[in-house]
Amino acid sequence: MNIKLSLFIRVIFILFCLGCAHKTEKPKKASATSTKQQKIVDLSHSFSDETIYWVTAKEFELDTVYKGETEKGYYYSANNFTTAEHGGTHIDAPIHFSKTGQTVDQIPLEKLIGKAIKIDVSAKALLDPDYQISIEDFKEWEKREQIKIPEGSIVLLATGFSKYYPDKLKYLGTNERGEEALKDLHFPGLAPEAAEWLIKNRTINAIGIDTPSIDYGQSQFFKIHVVLLSQNIPAFENVTNLDVLPATGFEIIALPMKIKGGSGGPLRIIALVTE
Amino acid sequence: MNIKLSLFIRVIFILFCLGCAHKTEKPKKASATSTKQQKIVDLSHSFSDETIYWVTAKEFELDTVYKGETEKGYYYSANNFTTAEHGGTHIDAPIHFSKTGQTVDQIPLEKLIGKAIKIDVSAKALLDPDYQISIEDFKEWEKREQIKIPEGSIVLLATGFSKYYPDKLKYLGTNERGEEALKDLHFPGLAPEAAEWLIKNRTINAIGIDTPSIDYGQSQFFKIHVVLLSQNIPAFENVTNLDVLPATGFEIIALPMKIKGGSGGPLRIIALVTE
Ligand SMILES: [Zn+2]
Ligand SMILES: [Zn+2]
Repeated sequence: MNIKLSLFIRVIFILFCLGCAHKTEKPKKASATSTKQQKIVDLSHSFSDETIYWVTAKEFELDTVYKGETEKGYYYSANNFTTAEHGGTHIDAPIHFSKTGQTVDQIPLEKLIGKAIKIDVSAKALLDPDYQISIEDFKEWEKREQIKIPEGSIVLLATGFSKYYPDKLKYLGTNERGEEALKDLHFPGLAPEAAEWLIKNRTINAIGIDTPSIDYGQSQFFKIHVVLLSQNIPAFENVTNLDVLPATGFEIIALPMKIKGGSGGPLRIIALVTE
Repeated sequence: MNIKLSLFIRVIFILFCLGCAHKTEKPKKASATSTKQQKIVDLSHSFSDETIYWVTAKEFELDTVYKGETEKGYYYSANNFTTAEHGGTHIDAPIHFSKTGQTVDQIPLEKLIGKAIKIDVSAKALLDPDYQISIEDFKEWEKREQIKIPEGSIVLLATGFSKYYPDKLKYLGTNERGEEALKDLHFPGLAPEAAEWLIKNRTINAIGIDTPSIDYGQSQFFKIHVVLLSQNIPAFENVTNLDVLPATGFEIIALPMKIKGGSGGPLRIIALVTE
């Protein structure tokens, strides 16, 4: 139940240390730090009848139970809803593609909260809906940022596709639904060799993408899901607003609905960005 | 979309300032702060067929879509689910009892994230399932803690009732369901005059309780809901694990499912506690 939030503390401690160093050298400037702002960025789409689901999945349905004045004199509104676990902004728990993997309620919260990085491949992906994020994309990011992907990072993959949401034709590749629409799915994802490289050479806590799936639309065997979820690395899909995030230096808080035994579920995901 | 997280920053800044002061006076001790630990406490019940709902509300239902090996050789599991917005650990959006109030997707995230306090009335409430938290309980807390309820706090009311969960007879007062069970609801809540006092004399961001409702079980007119939600103060209901929280000095992060136009919804709520 109680998990040590080491990553979070690390950031606070870095701020603390920076503060100490700063104070020691230029004591008058410490108060300037109080004007440093942190903003919350909501990386979640809302759930409605426009929410995008896999072409074979049950879509979101909201049913009004009551809406209006009651005979007792107060206003009241309440609804029921039905949804697939996987649709809209959601999490894939490891058990989604890994028989022995964690269910959504079993994912340690420390994997879902902590420092994050953004790898922006939108320049390539927006030109090619079948784009697969490569080992080279990771290496280029590391070269540009002059760091390795930090241990324990939450890695967000920005393809730019969230700007098409909720236009199914542009975002999924098709307006059709059902099995026969599967062949028409076109959106970017991760290349199998890039996923393998990531788990062999770096240690990440979770991964996220602004498309319907970490496997690209034309995937037949969902290798990325199998490779990452087998390592108990959860995946966030259909995230949004990645364009306003920097490449490094921000925190992610990703809190899924706690469905006992669930293979995934609705996710509210936010970023804390220091301005 | 991007909201300044002033409360959060304030805490980081306080840590920062404490660090600066500390450093200036005793420079060698700064590194000791790195051993200070922060833990995550999950205040959320999980959703299952044991989840407690209002006696007239639709309960949680999980339907297996697929579970097992596929013909393509990989394991796959996925479910659909149906639920009332209000059940288990959930949020009441202002519009639940206030016609012009915010829907759940409209609640500013800065109200749901920030410094919190716990007011423990379990010594009285566990002796009386019809207990209503009073103005005196708030005043006693302030006297004991030697502070006013801080401006912008998230206020958690600990009745001790979460220890009965998911035993409906003990937690709700009845095992029965439907309209005829309403008269048998017995669990603690807030007294109307205490809710009035709170909004007139203090400024809070949100309120939470470890019972099914902020109005006590025998309430007929849901005055607490009307009073607080009319002020756009959201309420967290059926929270748990409040017993491990201190009275002050912790943070709450409460992220609800983002249902467009929703009157509430499933909530994942956690506390960050400095050990
Ligand atoms: Zn999924
Ligand atoms: Zn409610």
